[in-house]
Amino acid sequence: MHAYPAACMVMHMEPGKRLSVAVAGASGYAGGEVLRVLLDHPHVEIGALTGASNAGTPLGALQPHLPPLADRVLQPTTTEVLAGHDVVFLALPHGASAEVAAELGDDVLVVDLGADHRLTDPARWAEFYGGTHAGTWPYGLPELPLAGGGTQRENLVGTRRIAVPGCYPTAVSLALAPGLAAGLLEPADVVVVAASGTSGAGKSLKPHLLGAEVMGSMSPYGVGGGHRHTPEIEQNLALSAGVPVQVSFTPTLAPMSRGILATCTARLAPGAAAGDVRAAWERAYAAEPFVHLLPEGRWPSTASVLGGNSCAMQLAVDERAGRVLVVAAIDNLVKGTAGGAVQSVNIALGLPEGTGLTAAGVAP
Amino acid sequence: MHAYPAACMVMHMEPGKRLSVAVAGASGYAGGEVLRVLLDHPHVEIGALTGASNAGTPLGALQPHLPPLADRVLQPTTTEVLAGHDVVFLALPHGASAEVAAELGDDVLVVDLGADHRLTDPARWAEFYGGTHAGTWPYGLPELPLAGGGTQRENLVGTRRIAVPGCYPTAVSLALAPGLAAGLLEPADVVVVAASGTSGAGKSLKPHLLGAEVMGSMSPYGVGGGHRHTPEIEQNLALSAGVPVQVSFTPTLAPMSRGILATCTARLAPGAAAGDVRAAWERAYAAEPFVHLLPEGRWPSTASVLGGNSCAMQLAVDERAGRVLVVAAIDNLVKGTAGGAVQSVNIALGLPEGTGLTAAGVAP
Amino acid sequence: MHAYPAACMVMHMEPGKRLSVAVAGASGYAGGEVLRVLLDHPHVEIGALTGASNAGTPLGALQPHLPPLADRVLQPTTTEVLAGHDVVFLALPHGASAEVAAELGDDVLVVDLGADHRLTDPARWAEFYGGTHAGTWPYGLPELPLAGGGTQRENLVGTRRIAVPGCYPTAVSLALAPGLAAGLLEPADVVVVAASGTSGAGKSLKPHLLGAEVMGSMSPYGVGGGHRHTPEIEQNLALSAGVPVQVSFTPTLAPMSRGILATCTARLAPGAAAGDVRAAWERAYAAEPFVHLLPEGRWPSTASVLGGNSCAMQLAVDERAGRVLVVAAIDNLVKGTAGGAVQSVNIALGLPEGTGLTAAGVAP
Amino acid sequence: MHAYPAACMVMHMEPGKRLSVAVAGASGYAGGEVLRVLLDHPHVEIGALTGASNAGTPLGALQPHLPPLADRVLQPTTTEVLAGHDVVFLALPHGASAEVAAELGDDVLVVDLGADHRLTDPARWAEFYGGTHAGTWPYGLPELPLAGGGTQRENLVGTRRIAVPGCYPTAVSLALAPGLAAGLLEPADVVVVAASGTSGAGKSLKPHLLGAEVMGSMSPYGVGGGHRHTPEIEQNLALSAGVPVQVSFTPTLAPMSRGILATCTARLAPGAAAGDVRAAWERAYAAEPFVHLLPEGRWPSTASVLGGNSCAMQLAVDERAGRVLVVAAIDNLVKGTAGGAVQSVNIALGLPEGTGLTAAGVAP
Repeated sequence: MHAYPAACMVMHMEPGKRLSVAVAGASGYAGGEVLRVLLDHPHVEIGALTGASNAGTPLGALQPHLPPLADRVLQPTTTEVLAGHDVVFLALPHGASAEVAAELGDDVLVVDLGADHRLTDPARWAEFYGGTHAGTWPYGLPELPLAGGGTQRENLVGTRRIAVPGCYPTAVSLALAPGLAAGLLEPADVVVVAASGTSGAGKSLKPHLLGAEVMGSMSPYGVGGGHRHTPEIEQNLALSAGVPVQVSFTPTLAPMSRGILATCTARLAPGAAAGDVRAAWERAYAAEPFVHLLPEGRWPSTASVLGGNSCAMQLAVDERAGRVLVVAAIDNLVKGTAGGAVQSVNIALGLPEGTGLTAAGVAP
Repeated sequence: MHAYPAACMVMHMEPGKRLSVAVAGASGYAGGEVLRVLLDHPHVEIGALTGASNAGTPLGALQPHLPPLADRVLQPTTTEVLAGHDVVFLALPHGASAEVAAELGDDVLVVDLGADHRLTDPARWAEFYGGTHAGTWPYGLPELPLAGGGTQRENLVGTRRIAVPGCYPTAVSLALAPGLAAGLLEPADVVVVAASGTSGAGKSLKPHLLGAEVMGSMSPYGVGGGHRHTPEIEQNLALSAGVPVQVSFTPTLAPMSRGILATCTARLAPGAAAGDVRAAWERAYAAEPFVHLLPEGRWPSTASVLGGNSCAMQLAVDERAGRVLVVAAIDNLVKGTAGGAVQSVNIALGLPEGTGLTAAGVAP
Repeated sequence: MHAYPAACMVMHMEPGKRLSVAVAGASGYAGGEVLRVLLDHPHVEIGALTGASNAGTPLGALQPHLPPLADRVLQPTTTEVLAGHDVVFLALPHGASAEVAAELGDDVLVVDLGADHRLTDPARWAEFYGGTHAGTWPYGLPELPLAGGGTQRENLVGTRRIAVPGCYPTAVSLALAPGLAAGLLEPADVVVVAASGTSGAGKSLKPHLLGAEVMGSMSPYGVGGGHRHTPEIEQNLALSAGVPVQVSFTPTLAPMSRGILATCTARLAPGAAAGDVRAAWERAYAAEPFVHLLPEGRWPSTASVLGGNSCAMQLAVDERAGRVLVVAAIDNLVKGTAGGAVQSVNIALGLPEGTGLTAAGVAP
Repeated sequence: MHAYPAACMVMHMEPGKRLSVAVAGASGYAGGEVLRVLLDHPHVEIGALTGASNAGTPLGALQPHLPPLADRVLQPTTTEVLAGHDVVFLALPHGASAEVAAELGDDVLVVDLGADHRLTDPARWAEFYGGTHAGTWPYGLPELPLAGGGTQRENLVGTRRIAVPGCYPTAVSLALAPGLAAGLLEPADVVVVAASGTSGAGKSLKPHLLGAEVMGSMSPYGVGGGHRHTPEIEQNLALSAGVPVQVSFTPTLAPMSRGILATCTARLAPGAAAGDVRAAWERAYAAEPFVHLLPEGRWPSTASVLGGNSCAMQLAVDERAGRVLVVAAIDNLVKGTAGGAVQSVNIALGLPEGTGLTAAGVAP
């Protein structure tokens, strides 16, 4: 699936040694969240922070919620600035990370928070993003159950390149994969409607993202199959199902800063027993510290996972409609971006997977 | 379908005469919204306002947004108080309106904002609400296209009893009915995920409705087919399709006071051409003042319909997934409750349908 | 105070005749709200709508909440386009309205929603806005009590030029003026802290106005006396007090689309009796349809005035601290902009002051 | 000031030893936040969790954002359950903590998150809370500068009883104390207007706290000097000023879950130079890890301190109005409650003050 073999733990964590970590694109929402998560990581020393138009600006003026880093000044995003770190996070616009990564060398763990290295099929890249595909890196969704058994986690051990999943694909794939892997769901007619907080759209200055527009308002976008996360979702689910999966995916914008609530439904496979459904999800996630199938009768909410590296979900079988429903909640910037990224980094480096991460959310 | 024949305009609107209108349950969200809408109605004189535990309280203490009625004191909800009005709106808990209506007589136009008289099938009433069904009244969704041609509007002319639709059924039925009536959608596998503002849950004091809980949070409820609006949606869509329709309906709670965004999908019927889809909706709503299929490229939002008696929608055909998607936005309290109710009252009384109503929303 | 004499009713409203009204700057929040209010005005025919960069765009793409005007196409803001209307509303950036108004002639009622013609002192204009002052027009705050008795209303009768007040000055001036006019408050040490919804900042694309930034957040701005509404507030209050008034004014941005809550305090004047305070406000506003001193025990909220042309207020005397507190709530876009403007237009044209306006808010 | 002498470090932290901690009132917002903060504390073992009506319920059903504690079952709040822990947090209704504390003995560190032990003057307790005062405990606001020099921190070293400050008093006292301690502000006429998220009102089921009511709305409460935090603020500021301080305090409810923005103003003392003001705050907080005077030109926001144990502030001198303005932002549940409590516990136990605490907020 990718060119970077799962080399075994070349990056030794000597006692007391700290990893030096650089973040490219530190002025955006994803970059800021990587920094927030890293501040709690006991083995990390935050090194260079870079930006494009914001180079020269102190981080405190751009990310005022990070007082410990307020006086750090952004540097330009160049290979010179990023070189010499153990780990480099790239929170760059689509298309910008391949070139940077190529120059950093294989001894550096490069973590791409953008979409460039997620898809395996160049045709689908061309269809949804345009241009030439940059290649595929190990995909940072450790808990994803695979068709043949096992999880995506194994592909991350020792890697020096990580493609961090999109936020929607994280929630949707975790929600549906156990049932597809267990053959309980029909892969041909999956319907997903997901609501996202507006940080998912980044800091881009667009009229429809103004506070006055989004407060009190729900609206759809990318309807009709056009959202760029659609092929990524289908790719993940196919890995779990072992066969192609077709998804009708509709994202909506919700009046909140953070959070994704994904409502995912698929038809019960012919012959599958409604009574077997719950057990498949329980098996898949029983030992996972960051994916929680809630006890029956409790429903996930985005508020309860805000700020935490956690995916909470619940399911139901609607026997009249013949469909299984799974609703999953994540914080798009944590489990859906920065927290998931650090989790994968921990795996890649042989650290305990939860190092520096919390499953607890900030609520109410 | 109902016992109240569409008598022709017995309620004469003499020039200058005003209809006297009473509102039972004036302290709740639905009752308050009926009053707000009626304040703009040129032929209405607001009469008795009643409440249960709030009898004796001035309306200003309960509905502070209605200064013109601030000094009106709530009376108890009794037949004596409600008698003698031309129109009586009942914004009462489920199960309470049948008895009141029976005592008011057939010369009074009784408008039930609750669920008691919506369903035609007593078995489904028993299944979803419990107890004995109170009977069926003409259903107040004028624009609903019917299988044989025509709309639900005709059933409202001259009626003295109106069952006001639920808020979700209003949005979902208007979204999908044109395609079902035109035979373009498969009726067997409709999937709907809808987000509602929390006023949809009423003024009930429940922990999960506290501001600190709902702000910044999306969460599902009534998942798995159990929401009481499911049979009402299926009943409406069957009237449009001419055959039974099966709906997987998942409601979610969104961090906003008002509004419903319903994302509705159905498989394209075998043999139906994607190119024919848009025209079916255009035909159905071209002449409707309160249902708007937006021009291509624009998407509805709940903000743009807030406070207005309007349903805005857009559709797309996802040819890869083989599904038609329709997203509809309404204000749950206006087009979804009080505005729709007044629209039906206008029809019943032979007034111009839009009297006292505006399609304009309060935005941003 | 201004060059435009209060000519008596030259604009005859013949029965059935409608005023033709143009709106320059129809794509912004203020312009859109003027249109929303005018749609309910029985004597108005909406004529030309203009924009700058948006000329050529249908209004439906810019103000999707106004379906009745969706197909109107914006024209460029030129004298040719605006000429020939009875009333022209200018919702333009500061500095742009004087020139347009000069060319429209004195037979047209020109209503400036910007700041250009509010201040009477050119020095203060220069200090807070920079450049040369465009001159002063009659100030559209009808209810403002004046030091010598009477109200600002008299200055509006028959005028052909109206300077619409700023949103903060509307709330703050109405809150404090009765006490200053009655000599109950010390004019030397007024302290005001006000919270505004983010529509008050307009549709400008600034990072701190993004939804992800403002939701869940309160922050101050213009602290230390620098906000441009400070001189306007002081000018209004001086008209009421008959002596100069000094105000410490701190505006804050609140996580809501609309609304201003102004908390205003002043020291009780020496010799003034706490027991006399309430009566002064009652006298000032007893007959006003759009300014409401709430009954004791009830407090205003921005939600209850949303969408309505209403200012709700409450007061208290803090005898320990020796201060009178008045808290006033308005919708910044209605009573604070478009509704107040239409109210003044009604006065100028000799129409009943409340024509086309409602005091009812859209709540919850 | 209190009966519990600052005994020197009797509670030895042996290497690897963990403190056992109980939380009484674990189902409320304050109790939940204590648990969230403690989950990150390296020296803490979370022991008994208690509730009143919720005894017997698993925490996961009440605080779904804390997955690591989801299976813990609440016990009744009795001395038996709470005994045997090193530290006991009391998040109980006013009036309930004195009795519990008395039975726990002086070897246990008891931390009262309620108001019972904050005030030093029984007369003011009686005036604002009613009933008999329970006595005064060391006050947990370490950074508060005292009139004679030094800070409140010294009073916390080694204590076995801590009265956690109220949320408003935390923000307001930190905002104004440096200027009062330096004699730069007049103590006689302090005016404070503060906005709070609705979690500040707790989980109480009151109609005005429903989501539909608070979203999009600002409203005042406790106006006129009646809020219970007024005497606590005046007590703190008097400790800093060395003379009595009179405060006009107006709290408002803002449409957000968390956060306090306090706008605090006082007249510049006669003879004080505007140019000296900033330095006083810089001196007071230069070495404080959790109180941040922002660089000039940046303003605090509640979003940037959400979830962090941080107070961000900015000030300005309004020379025209003769007033100093200080605006401070905190998370009411962290620096204003649970984080501040843990900070004081660290001091009391001789741990590094920031153990288990972060100044970083969760934004956007």
